[in-house]
Amino acid sequence: MSLGEFDLISRFFMRPEGQGPRRAQVGNGDDCAVIAPAPGHHIALSTDTLVEGRHFLSTVDPARLGHKSLAVNLSDLAAAGARPLGFTLALTLPRADATWLEGFSKGLLALADAHDCELIGGDTTAGPLTIGITVLGEVPAGGALLRNGARPGHELWVSGQPGEARLALEAFRGTLSLSTEDFQATRDRMECPAPRVALGLALRGVASAAIDVSDGLLGDLGHILRRSGVGATLHTEQLPRSACLTRQPAAQQLDMLLAGGDDYELLFTAPAEAHAQVLAAAQQAGVAVHRFGHIDAEPGLRLLDQGQPLANRWTSFDHFRA
Amino acid sequence: MSLGEFDLISRFFMRPEGQGPRRAQVGNGDDCAVIAPAPGHHIALSTDTLVEGRHFLSTVDPARLGHKSLAVNLSDLAAAGARPLGFTLALTLPRADATWLEGFSKGLLALADAHDCELIGGDTTAGPLTIGITVLGEVPAGGALLRNGARPGHELWVSGQPGEARLALEAFRGTLSLSTEDFQATRDRMECPAPRVALGLALRGVASAAIDVSDGLLGDLGHILRRSGVGATLHTEQLPRSACLTRQPAAQQLDMLLAGGDDYELLFTAPAEAHAQVLAAAQQAGVAVHRFGHIDAEPGLRLLDQGQPLANRWTSFDHFRA
Repeated sequence: MSLGEFDLISRFFMRPEGQGPRRAQVGNGDDCAVIAPAPGHHIALSTDTLVEGRHFLSTVDPARLGHKSLAVNLSDLAAAGARPLGFTLALTLPRADATWLEGFSKGLLALADAHDCELIGGDTTAGPLTIGITVLGEVPAGGALLRNGARPGHELWVSGQPGEARLALEAFRGTLSLSTEDFQATRDRMECPAPRVALGLALRGVASAAIDVSDGLLGDLGHILRRSGVGATLHTEQLPRSACLTRQPAAQQLDMLLAGGDDYELLFTAPAEAHAQVLAAAQQAGVAVHRFGHIDAEPGLRLLDQGQPLANRWTSFDHFRA
Repeated sequence: MSLGEFDLISRFFMRPEGQGPRRAQVGNGDDCAVIAPAPGHHIALSTDTLVEGRHFLSTVDPARLGHKSLAVNLSDLAAAGARPLGFTLALTLPRADATWLEGFSKGLLALADAHDCELIGGDTTAGPLTIGITVLGEVPAGGALLRNGARPGHELWVSGQPGEARLALEAFRGTLSLSTEDFQATRDRMECPAPRVALGLALRGVASAAIDVSDGLLGDLGHILRRSGVGATLHTEQLPRSACLTRQPAAQQLDMLLAGGDDYELLFTAPAEAHAQVLAAAQQAGVAVHRFGHIDAEPGLRLLDQGQPLANRWTSFDHFRA
């Protein structure tokens, strides 16, 4: 079936009065949306695009795709310690398919509601399936978590269990095999990542630097190290390994952990004195965190496995080189 | 040639210290950009996507494409009476081509600088050529120009000379022919629209409703009428006709004027008492404006040509139906 552009927006993306958060002074449907941060706060914003065939398979459940499209953006707010306010959606579709749109909008808006994040504007065009989201949040003035605050002696932390999303991707690609249960569990992690928004908020004033892990742990850690002008030592055996991951060969476990990507976990640093505060923040957010290394004044990355040096054979995922 | 994603961003889109506006507390290169409106102001934002083959031809000069990609977004800020602050760029490219990127970024950043609008973040992915921009501006709290303020008796105005961009498009399509000079002039209008930002700012507190003309004059007027719950009477002979347009057959002139699209002129209403203020605002902004009708309490659109009723055979451009 074919729908006109305006029908499509109002049918699938405009919320009835009283449904979903209402924060914008002017919402979806004027030339601009108008929104304001709370007094003493600034606007944090981030943008991410998902392209069919590159970031998702054409066979993915549209509801999960809707969820993930917003999740990867909320993850950037989480890494800045920002509270979600709203987002814009730029949807490019080969055709206006009501079944697809119903699923997509359902998954998208369910996650938006869960994070009190209003759909405040958007744009719909015809073309190859591409989903562009720009998300806005608020942070206390001067209080955003940045990449440049890691200092020698600070501890290195990661939330959740990185590596599972890549396990699922490799199973899809046929480069490894998983039991039905492991495939389902890791596929959920790949298709429905949970943005660590609550953890990011709880880490305000505690973490010294933060980033979300989208391109692989080492690659994203590299951004923190470069921005902060420091190096790091990693104890790879201290990285959390999920049950699914431990059923893979040891070398592959490290590949997934260190260079898997698509995790949307928070990678952050905090002063050693703040160790207990980090654990309290994680508890408050209901997310496990693990310390797995520390920041050094000496530039570069030192990988250790049970105290033995490990050669770094992993490089960052790069969309134009992968 | 092929470039990595991070090289690409830093080479073409990061500005050296002291070049271009610096407004973001945290700019391009962290998880989020952080930006704040001036005290007493809110954030106005809008998003627009340009898809190759749909919004532009693959043969277009990349610098002009860069200009237009931002111009259509700035035009939305203009229609809200917002002052540009910054924008995010989501670029999906089939490959990282340095020549293309150099031209594109040059055109994009030149227009951004002209409007003191900072590139504060972005995302680069591989895929079919798609340009997604979300632009942010500031408006005095409660002072945005909206679509819903048109009241019976208010005058209807339009800036510039609508219809020229569509003339060029039709010449490209081969449905009409233009002299070399006319083709060049109208092509400039299609490829390098001038967003009416200064006019939008000057119309704050003067215009009662505003929209930018992207889908055709009548279609966009329809949004104002629906939102405001009013109708309108148009005197089509009062619409400004450029020299190029007057060299076309009369019926075609009306097609271009009323349903051309891609004009990025401001269509707005203002109380009759504010007539002189509108002209003063236009003078201040250095843009011509023309009154061509008025708002009625009676719903619907009445088209007149030299006082004679004219049947409305034009419908709005719709991306999924055109």
